[in-house]
Amino acid sequence: MSDMPKQVHIKEVGPREGFQFERDDISLHQKISLVDALSDTGVRTIEFTSFVSPKWVPQMADAEQMVAGIKRAPGVAYEAIWLNEAGLERAARLRESLALRPMFGVAASDVFMRKNTNRSVDEKIAELPGWAGRYRDLGMDWIDVGVMAAFGCNYEGAVETSRVVAVLAKVEERATGCGSRLGGIGLADTMGWANPLQIKRLVGAVRDRWPGTPVKLHLHDTRALAIANVVAALEMGVDRFDSAVAGMGGCPFAAHKGAAGNVTTEDLVFLCQELGVETGIDLDAMIEAGQLAERVVGHPLPGKLKSGGNLETYRARVRAGVNA
Amino acid sequence: MSDMPKQVHIKEVGPREGFQFERDDISLHQKISLVDALSDTGVRTIEFTSFVSPKWVPQMADAEQMVAGIKRAPGVAYEAIWLNEAGLERAARLRESLALRPMFGVAASDVFMRKNTNRSVDEKIAELPGWAGRYRDLGMDWIDVGVMAAFGCNYEGAVETSRVVAVLAKVEERATGCGSRLGGIGLADTMGWANPLQIKRLVGAVRDRWPGTPVKLHLHDTRALAIANVVAALEMGVDRFDSAVAGMGGCPFAAHKGAAGNVTTEDLVFLCQELGVETGIDLDAMIEAGQLAERVVGHPLPGKLKSGGNLETYRARVRAGVNA
Repeated sequence: MSDMPKQVHIKEVGPREGFQFERDDISLHQKISLVDALSDTGVRTIEFTSFVSPKWVPQMADAEQMVAGIKRAPGVAYEAIWLNEAGLERAARLRESLALRPMFGVAASDVFMRKNTNRSVDEKIAELPGWAGRYRDLGMDWIDVGVMAAFGCNYEGAVETSRVVAVLAKVEERATGCGSRLGGIGLADTMGWANPLQIKRLVGAVRDRWPGTPVKLHLHDTRALAIANVVAALEMGVDRFDSAVAGMGGCPFAAHKGAAGNVTTEDLVFLCQELGVETGIDLDAMIEAGQLAERVVGHPLPGKLKSGGNLETYRARVRAGVNA
Repeated sequence: MSDMPKQVHIKEVGPREGFQFERDDISLHQKISLVDALSDTGVRTIEFTSFVSPKWVPQMADAEQMVAGIKRAPGVAYEAIWLNEAGLERAARLRESLALRPMFGVAASDVFMRKNTNRSVDEKIAELPGWAGRYRDLGMDWIDVGVMAAFGCNYEGAVETSRVVAVLAKVEERATGCGSRLGGIGLADTMGWANPLQIKRLVGAVRDRWPGTPVKLHLHDTRALAIANVVAALEMGVDRFDSAVAGMGGCPFAAHKGAAGNVTTEDLVFLCQELGVETGIDLDAMIEAGQLAERVVGHPLPGKLKSGGNLETYRARVRAGVNA
């Protein structure tokens, strides 16, 4: 496990991924209380809302109010997402309060891309220059690409490594062709198809082709392999992960009712603690945030640490001789 | 991942581990229905009840009725456990119907051993000759040792690899000293302390010392690492695992209320399917058994595949052109 990084950067995406699947009467105050609790955990990036149409996602209608309401902890980047120009403009108006990121999402599966955005993969990539231009106006001369369904698709089945590399190469070509460049690469297991061997294959292929480019993984735990997939990624030197407190979230386009949430932040932080990988996150504070998330949504959430408990608590008791 | 085995043997322990933690009004008929469903999955060993005192575990008072009631699928070994001589004698009376196994359980932690059985580790090992003699009378001239708390203990903290090896060496010495021998070695992460690096260290040390002896892992998912721990074990060539359908089970002595169940059988079978490791188990049938387990206990159980679904279903749809 020699490539394992000394530290990893975890982006908390629970509020953004999670609230959209919940009943729409969770109060603004409750949502803000969760983001504020996350701000006290030491996590350095929190993606907490989406600038999307309230017609499609009524739970995110309060995005501007969220931005106005949350507290801002020093050293924490507060991010949001958008899926179209209108969303980007809403976010851009709040750029004093938000950490904007020049994101560009594309799928490795045409059918998924069409179901998600009503355009093909190539049609989406053809739109890149428009996005890149607007991002340059906002001071960002690169593109952070996120590849959805990078490990498999419920509609198209297995996704070959070469296909993901080809999509990324097209994105890079378009980006450089319009005076921008490829920044970071995100690989998303949107529908829970990844396994540890495949993680190693795809990460290996991507790093082989773009050796200097940061790679981030966004993993769902639909089929129980998310933490094992993180271990495989760590072994490949990956040091950036999205995760969701308490395992909030899921994918509305995944064509199965059981779409599980993201890999759970506190479980991921625990894994890193046990492997000796730094996260900068206070695990006990993140466990408390996970317990709060469960109270806010009002139903059980899948993360384990919030019931299993931090082993450091037991170790401290042993050191103190409590069980002697 | 060159040491990964071509096939693994999975022992289903859900009914034995799981029912003891449930309300005690689950009917004999319901319990038997779950064992019978498991018999149709292709799993080759089912540990389905305990011969323990009904005073301590009222849910297992029907052990004899379970033995009489379950159907016997060809090629399936039906196992039970016992914790004392009285339990062994109850099982021995039914040996035409049960697959007896010369089990000997010992902990790597003295405090846990005392809490569990009211004796120290050395006191327990001193009892081995009595067990070995009775097992020889029953036709078994070896001992299958199971080491509880082999990866850590809520009362004693971290458990060193050398400590587990020392316990195993004492067990072997006692066994050979009384005309028996060490058969299989089971390593149990009773309280959910293991992580992938530790799995590799302990399995490596045990295989180094006892190269020809089969090693089996019994992993709990208390802190979300069970599947990642299985991957680490597979990479070390381990080919025997206990698991529980739907993730049933837990440990009553674990000193925290959140004691999660065993690694989930259908999730483990899915992992193996995706890694190309044979289990002999029909994943769809095991998913159905997991759904049945949830109906029988009457509350959600943690396994993921029973909601996430088998990827082979999606692959078959793609091959059939359903989404084309």
